[in-house]
Amino acid sequence: MSVFTRVSRDELAAWLKSYSLGPLLDLQGISAGIENTNYFVTAGHTRYVLTLFEKLTRDELPFFLGLLDHLASHGTPCPRPVANLENHFLGELNGKPACLVSCLEGQPLDQPDPAHCAQMGEMLADLHLAGRTYPAQISNPRGPGWWQKTAPQVLPKMPATEAELLSQEIAWQSGFRFEDLPRGIIHGDLFRDNVLFKDGALNGVIDFYYACNDALLYDLAIAANDWCMTEDRALDRERVAAMVQAYHLTRPFSASELAAWPIMLRAAALRFWLSRLGDFYFPRPGELTHAKDPSHFRDILQQHIAAPSDLRQLL
Amino acid sequence: MSVFTRVSRDELAAWLKSYSLGPLLDLQGISAGIENTNYFVTAGHTRYVLTLFEKLTRDELPFFLGLLDHLASHGTPCPRPVANLENHFLGELNGKPACLVSCLEGQPLDQPDPAHCAQMGEMLADLHLAGRTYPAQISNPRGPGWWQKTAPQVLPKMPATEAELLSQEIAWQSGFRFEDLPRGIIHGDLFRDNVLFKDGALNGVIDFYYACNDALLYDLAIAANDWCMTEDRALDRERVAAMVQAYHLTRPFSASELAAWPIMLRAAALRFWLSRLGDFYFPRPGELTHAKDPSHFRDILQQHIAAPSDLRQLL
Repeated sequence: MSVFTRVSRDELAAWLKSYSLGPLLDLQGISAGIENTNYFVTAGHTRYVLTLFEKLTRDELPFFLGLLDHLASHGTPCPRPVANLENHFLGELNGKPACLVSCLEGQPLDQPDPAHCAQMGEMLADLHLAGRTYPAQISNPRGPGWWQKTAPQVLPKMPATEAELLSQEIAWQSGFRFEDLPRGIIHGDLFRDNVLFKDGALNGVIDFYYACNDALLYDLAIAANDWCMTEDRALDRERVAAMVQAYHLTRPFSASELAAWPIMLRAAALRFWLSRLGDFYFPRPGELTHAKDPSHFRDILQQHIAAPSDLRQLL
Repeated sequence: MSVFTRVSRDELAAWLKSYSLGPLLDLQGISAGIENTNYFVTAGHTRYVLTLFEKLTRDELPFFLGLLDHLASHGTPCPRPVANLENHFLGELNGKPACLVSCLEGQPLDQPDPAHCAQMGEMLADLHLAGRTYPAQISNPRGPGWWQKTAPQVLPKMPATEAELLSQEIAWQSGFRFEDLPRGIIHGDLFRDNVLFKDGALNGVIDFYYACNDALLYDLAIAANDWCMTEDRALDRERVAAMVQAYHLTRPFSASELAAWPIMLRAAALRFWLSRLGDFYFPRPGELTHAKDPSHFRDILQQHIAAPSDLRQLL
């Protein structure tokens, strides 16, 4: 259940008077999502998603809403924020920061094929190009600084061999600086469940609340670790080749990126292993049902260590 | 034929590299429209309209493209301009100012019923509300100053009784100032062929190149003169009542507007009578086939003079 803050039809109808969208026709709670309250809202023949932010603050949100507007302006198929009569994307409803965004059609794919992965690669390259002119910046809230802070919390609770793997990987990653990697806006969480397909065509990319400024290649590595995995938690050559080739056609990799690919794949596995470890050992009240198995990304990390991927050979 | 400037597939594919839209999949000339060159362009699963501007200049266009973006941000179902990698809506293609906008689905209605007119009234009120925060302004290029300039050109060519009607109407209109009428962004050309319906629902409003700052009520009068006419060129009470009531629900009329309605209906008829007279007596080369019968709006004007509409009685 993801309606943490209830909104009645009357409350919403009154709130919508601060928009130029026509009268409220329908309102339905959305069960997906674990961080915010979401409703489908139909007003003036058009369907929107209403989000009440339960954790992100009024100071943090303009970066994300401005980014969605910027990317949508450039053709990225992301939700587009709707401005109210005061020309603001962000309002307040029932005490929470709230916004309306356009509603995208489509469904996530559980088992993408190489053609789907190619669409993803192309879309992500275009998203990275579109992000170049976005003026605001934030650093990655799940970057190396966060690894250093989070690891000591989970290490004492972990089995010794796992703890050693985690410590060694963080130490190993800290040996790389990558100051010459192309950087910019990344989505930061481009798992299959954040991409919508309609009739086989990529029609939407959602959930930008981990977007930040980081190495662009890292974003592709996060995606590859989710979209291109075999049941053995190793990269499927056909799918990952389709994804990186399509990406490369739109935004060609630099020499530094070709070299950094296996390290980025490990960094991306580490980041999600670590966040899942945190969720596993320190569950937030009421969120136990959503905790995901940390060992999934431990296994992926181990596969990347055992068999590093060579980006040149995939192109 | 409305492809004045030809664009080849290769030229467009090269031009699209300055956008983040994915590869060009399809390109088709559009025959509608008499002022610009338009193509349907499909890139990355999405359909856009490419416009090469044949008359409007690089200086004039930012007002209109910025307005479309602003209104679309607020939920107006208008074409949305796409920004290129330099973050500009306006580019240049084959020597002409050019832009891409989103492609809206739907078809114009030749014979709208009262429910369609109500949707129009509501949409127009919302458009007027959304326009309030648009920062740029331009005066009406077809306003009273233009009437005064254009009438002397056509009057000598007109039959005497018609010429007298035209002169008298311009003189009569000049007696009103309407400084207290609510003003703002108007569409300025909201005829049936500029509004698209899909499955009975208003889904698009297009052709904003007469948009400007003027009395909001004037915009509604332009629409009523086209959407709500009987075959006798008089207002159909049922349709005009549906339109103005829906408008009034979203943006209630002021007392000054209630009084000004019959005058605005005459001003709106005058404006299109005069522009059609200009097109009729001074056809531009190659545009004869598009010249529309001026007498249509002469008749509407005469009907409004003979039987003034009372807005209070329609609400």
